[in-house]
Amino acid sequence: MLAQPVADHLRRHEQQWLETLFELLRFRSIANTEPDVCQACAEWLVGELSAMGFTARVVPTPGRPNVIAELHADDAAPTLLAYAHYDVQPPDPLEQWETDPFEPAIRDDCVFARGASDDKGPLVAWLAAADAWRSAGGGLPVSLKLLLEGEEEIGSPNMEAFLGEHGEELTADAAVVSDSEFFAHGVPTLTYSLRGLVYVELHLRGPSADIHSGIHGGAVSNPANGLAKMLAGLHDADGRVTVPGYYDGVRGLEDDERRMWRELPFDEGAYAASVGVDGLGAGERGFTVLERRWARPTLDVNGIYGGYADAGSKTIIPAEAGAKVSMRLVPDQDPEKVVEGFRRYVAENTPPGLTAAVKVYAKARPVLLRRRGPVVDAARAALRGAFDAEPAMVRCGASVPVTEMIQRLLGVDPVLMGFGLPDDRLHSPNERFRLGQFRGGCRAAAAMIGNLGLTGPAESG
Amino acid sequence: MLAQPVADHLRRHEQQWLETLFELLRFRSIANTEPDVCQACAEWLVGELSAMGFTARVVPTPGRPNVIAELHADDAAPTLLAYAHYDVQPPDPLEQWETDPFEPAIRDDCVFARGASDDKGPLVAWLAAADAWRSAGGGLPVSLKLLLEGEEEIGSPNMEAFLGEHGEELTADAAVVSDSEFFAHGVPTLTYSLRGLVYVELHLRGPSADIHSGIHGGAVSNPANGLAKMLAGLHDADGRVTVPGYYDGVRGLEDDERRMWRELPFDEGAYAASVGVDGLGAGERGFTVLERRWARPTLDVNGIYGGYADAGSKTIIPAEAGAKVSMRLVPDQDPEKVVEGFRRYVAENTPPGLTAAVKVYAKARPVLLRRRGPVVDAARAALRGAFDAEPAMVRCGASVPVTEMIQRLLGVDPVLMGFGLPDDRLHSPNERFRLGQFRGGCRAAAAMIGNLGLTGPAESG
Repeated sequence: MLAQPVADHLRRHEQQWLETLFELLRFRSIANTEPDVCQACAEWLVGELSAMGFTARVVPTPGRPNVIAELHADDAAPTLLAYAHYDVQPPDPLEQWETDPFEPAIRDDCVFARGASDDKGPLVAWLAAADAWRSAGGGLPVSLKLLLEGEEEIGSPNMEAFLGEHGEELTADAAVVSDSEFFAHGVPTLTYSLRGLVYVELHLRGPSADIHSGIHGGAVSNPANGLAKMLAGLHDADGRVTVPGYYDGVRGLEDDERRMWRELPFDEGAYAASVGVDGLGAGERGFTVLERRWARPTLDVNGIYGGYADAGSKTIIPAEAGAKVSMRLVPDQDPEKVVEGFRRYVAENTPPGLTAAVKVYAKARPVLLRRRGPVVDAARAALRGAFDAEPAMVRCGASVPVTEMIQRLLGVDPVLMGFGLPDDRLHSPNERFRLGQFRGGCRAAAAMIGNLGLTGPAESG
Repeated sequence: MLAQPVADHLRRHEQQWLETLFELLRFRSIANTEPDVCQACAEWLVGELSAMGFTARVVPTPGRPNVIAELHADDAAPTLLAYAHYDVQPPDPLEQWETDPFEPAIRDDCVFARGASDDKGPLVAWLAAADAWRSAGGGLPVSLKLLLEGEEEIGSPNMEAFLGEHGEELTADAAVVSDSEFFAHGVPTLTYSLRGLVYVELHLRGPSADIHSGIHGGAVSNPANGLAKMLAGLHDADGRVTVPGYYDGVRGLEDDERRMWRELPFDEGAYAASVGVDGLGAGERGFTVLERRWARPTLDVNGIYGGYADAGSKTIIPAEAGAKVSMRLVPDQDPEKVVEGFRRYVAENTPPGLTAAVKVYAKARPVLLRRRGPVVDAARAALRGAFDAEPAMVRCGASVPVTEMIQRLLGVDPVLMGFGLPDDRLHSPNERFRLGQFRGGCRAAAAMIGNLGLTGPAESG
């Protein structure tokens, strides 16, 4: 339920919240490479939240800090935990951006900036929603807790320990993770399953220095050739991943899921065109495109390097070569076992004359959330009201590690309610967030707060 | 024959020629990336040669210029053409150099600098030899022509046309290509065969931008995975190259070659240790290490790139990926047919959803030179006298494209007489040239001039 004064307040203050979003987007908050900026960004968020009446603080982790904030309603009101993240993907390749990724620009009714859609736009929508209830709705009908993470884009390496330590403080009757997207334009979406992630780097060493490919070619093992061979061997002819034990625990789809997905407005050709390809060549034989993206595990090379890659030619056997490899996991694959399997694959398949090393960057479990119940209903209604369309229920191929951790460690199944669109260019140059989605997102967040205030803490009962 | 006054002159002027070498090494003469430096280097060489009495000039090509010079003896004397190159490999990885690659430094009786051994040290040895005959030997007993190339390290893309145009000017009774190395310390070496080279870049395009590996993984073809698959498929399980028609024309070894090579002081373990590996894993099954390096064709990835290769992780399906690939050819493989075969392999093996492009950087034919005759004898005697050891006759796995072109276009079989050692780190960080080899190289070049003066133009008769 979105009270009219709250809706009016949101409308009147849209420009103010856009300016807040712009300020947030100017922080170059890349978790791996910009620790100082992340710290400053977290402190700035605490300042904004404090000014809104939240009790807010920067909470350090061994990596980048998180922000915890609470705006307490009366003790009888249910508690809602809302999650978003303030860190962003690196912006490269920089030369492909039309405007500075960290100087937001409005064009064609979109905000263009790194993090506009993923996930600073949705983050600010929750601030705007809380402020509207506080200023124009007679106070919040729920106690609102916020968890704003600083390491989502690098796989949330410290979130598990963080929730272990701060779980009590974050206890809630319901939770929303606001880091997902609509299935399509005009199709507001609740996501009930996410893939997990194992992200590793495979590094191969050959000769102690780059050596002459003519003098030594044919005798000395080449790490770049060896890498190609090892990576190629990670898929079989049917597109299945060959990591030992990889498919252990993979759940089949339920009938109602297949049914729901068949009704979605999905056109393969349009989807292929949206990412700039003529056809879809990846994935396992025997599954539809949506099944392969949402419900089947995958393995992708995210980056590959070694030897001479500048202009022209250099005739060497490189000393080393490597690749960053991500594996997207589905329920109920176990990331630990996948890492073990990957290490076994490497041990068994490293060509003679080369030395392999595996570095693990991220491990996140897949998650399957409940698809029915009062909190899900509250979220559906909020989206329906804000975007004037019946929400779809989908899975998503991406990973938001905190989702599964909230489920497992805080004991509450969150709903995944995000406001981005599929062509927002997440992780790509010229990322954008449509102003209409921002407006709708603010309304949906406010409605969710209202609906949950009416519903009460039913989920936990 | 090395007349005593000539030998004495060389000894007395060693420091002067070292300083000349240092000046030459300071030119950052990388053919691909430093056209202005190459031009300046060629002009400097002409200045030095003119001061020595040569008729010398910079001769432009569509790429980097070459230097042609002549010091004419009386008309009855035979003509010797000596070839070396003044361009060098790029110095990266820069951080692995102990001292600046373009500021020569003497340590442990070696000159350390990019190009010290390949090929500026040998180049200067010929200048010193000519100068010693001129100053102390009563004039040169041969007419000496010099061809100093500026594009050897990028595969001599313009040399064929250059020799076509300037062949008459370069006509000689005998030729020396001074760009090869000893088989081992204390084993002066004449090389009678070189591998050819085809150097290509394979580039794959997938989505129009880097896209989210979670949202799209399993549907959209990944160019880095596709590249790995295509590169891996270029070798079969026996280490044979699968490019269609690749082995057409490959000559078997002759019995006397196998016999000579068995007598060479070659220890596999020591060789492996010299390049920093525990074992030798590459190449075709069924051939010895020397056979694989010298007489069998190979395929090596020289560089590989695509996606995110910086610190940490980034979860993308990259928009593109590529690799630089060199193929070393043996007599009588045809580079044109190899390029055709590679293109066919690419056309037949590009995974669906990806677009492939092939760029050809270099094509050089393999060469097999005569192993007997008066010029070969003159060279053997020169090396024997200068280094006090019996020269070995070997093949070499590297490519010096001009060798085959001199044979084919100038109608004279050159001898390959170089002065480097196998651990000079050609194409690698901390390239070096031993002072002893420089001294011996000057003596050997001078002796070759002397011997050929005695021999007369027998080769061409």
